[in-house]
Amino acid sequence: MELWFTERNTNYVNFSIKVKEQLYSKKSKFQQIDVFDTYEFGKVLVIDGYVMITEKDEFIYHEMITHVAMATNPEIKNVLVIGGGDGGSIRELTRYNSIENIDMVEIDKEVVEISKKFFPQTSCKYDDERVALYFEDGIKFVEGKHNIYDLIIVDSTDPIGPGEGLFTKAFYQNCYDALTEYGILVNQNESPYYKNTASDLIRAYSKLEAIFPIAKAYQYHMPTYASGHWIFGFASKRLDPIKDFKPERWESLGLKTKYYNTDIHVGAFALPTYVKEMLKIKEYNL
Amino acid sequence: MELWFTERNTNYVNFSIKVKEQLYSKKSKFQQIDVFDTYEFGKVLVIDGYVMITEKDEFIYHEMITHVAMATNPEIKNVLVIGGGDGGSIRELTRYNSIENIDMVEIDKEVVEISKKFFPQTSCKYDDERVALYFEDGIKFVEGKHNIYDLIIVDSTDPIGPGEGLFTKAFYQNCYDALTEYGILVNQNESPYYKNTASDLIRAYSKLEAIFPIAKAYQYHMPTYASGHWIFGFASKRLDPIKDFKPERWESLGLKTKYYNTDIHVGAFALPTYVKEMLKIKEYNL
Repeated sequence: MELWFTERNTNYVNFSIKVKEQLYSKKSKFQQIDVFDTYEFGKVLVIDGYVMITEKDEFIYHEMITHVAMATNPEIKNVLVIGGGDGGSIRELTRYNSIENIDMVEIDKEVVEISKKFFPQTSCKYDDERVALYFEDGIKFVEGKHNIYDLIIVDSTDPIGPGEGLFTKAFYQNCYDALTEYGILVNQNESPYYKNTASDLIRAYSKLEAIFPIAKAYQYHMPTYASGHWIFGFASKRLDPIKDFKPERWESLGLKTKYYNTDIHVGAFALPTYVKEMLKIKEYNL
Repeated sequence: MELWFTERNTNYVNFSIKVKEQLYSKKSKFQQIDVFDTYEFGKVLVIDGYVMITEKDEFIYHEMITHVAMATNPEIKNVLVIGGGDGGSIRELTRYNSIENIDMVEIDKEVVEISKKFFPQTSCKYDDERVALYFEDGIKFVEGKHNIYDLIIVDSTDPIGPGEGLFTKAFYQNCYDALTEYGILVNQNESPYYKNTASDLIRAYSKLEAIFPIAKAYQYHMPTYASGHWIFGFASKRLDPIKDFKPERWESLGLKTKYYNTDIHVGAFALPTYVKEMLKIKEYNL
């Protein structure tokens, strides 16, 4: 018997992974959660039919969602992570001794429990004493908070199901208010390639731009997400990820990474022309 | 009835495209050639089971294989293209008025004929008077040539079948000899992500490095190739693609592109750490 998991990238494109064994399958209060052991990618976490992380390449996503902001502002001390129940963003953040507190707000407790059981590689830092875990709605969590966080990471699923509200203007405005003077927001911003995700990217990016004085997009290669071409948003009140970037200072920390480096930090902001046109970006970054 | 074309990215990963209609299927003297009309990508050219070009995204590949070298040395006048029977590289090159001659050597005449029939979008410049088309083996074509070409583009299929010899040291040495003093070679260099293509990348890159004083690798997002993370090699006798890059001069040409721009030119050379380690690259580019 052959067992294959298929993600529908679009109605006309399928991405299929040969499965050794299905390890978990259950509908939580919020979403359908599946875990597969696979030949090519090791264990794979799937939510509502979409690949969230794989053991083989989660490092790309988690390094790029954290280190770009941390290298732009090495003074970051208080961090909020919304979503990210697999724990990978926490793992990367806790590598910085300079960080004093990380609030993590994950709506679905089962994602954290399943990650602790099947993905010790990513969920290894929940015990760090600087991490406070809240099983709440991130949208409500940021409401009414002022001048608290130096960094907010929106490590969300796609804007369907519980992730939907994380793509609204009200949410981003609340994040803006919750950030300190030199605060940075980084959000999972979908992909420019297929129409369905491109419209989400445009929607989210235009809101960041409307609220934050500095709003940029940077890209990374994520082979197990549809098209492999994915974007994070970088928004801040004062700091520019290129102009205020301190490569020497980040290098001096001696952190060992597998994807992120101070070259990629800069290069990731160089977007293809069709993406710049889609996002109405006129200036050059480099 | 539903018709799907599936490319086996690896033994354990499939990429499938829903097909409207199979337009062509025939084994040439060298390889199996198929053309599909698809919902997502328009027409798709498949050789030996692998996607070569799609109407939706061939611009990415063809812009990145040509403009990086042309923007590094705007004095390029005489060009050799090996492979590239779809005509996309020719199309991009003929946009430069400064180019005086393009020799194109494609081993498989049927690829050119099929492209002319089904892909007028890429095969539109075979009539340009500067283009000379040779249906020969590119490996033999470069043998014994000295100090002739300012640019050689190896626009090859994967190193199986007729593409195999294009990944040997003897071939690259012949290319070196065929290049002028400021000559540049750009080659299709596979992908770092899956083991099968990563070994080809390492094999090809190490040879470029052994022969050329300057050897670099640059990446691009190619969603319809396995993993979406692909590499071109850039090798030259004297010119560095970053240090000798003249963005203003390229901008002054006013060429309209959809992927390439002077930001991407630089950013593409910023490789992930795992790729740098794979290729034993120590220095930073940016």
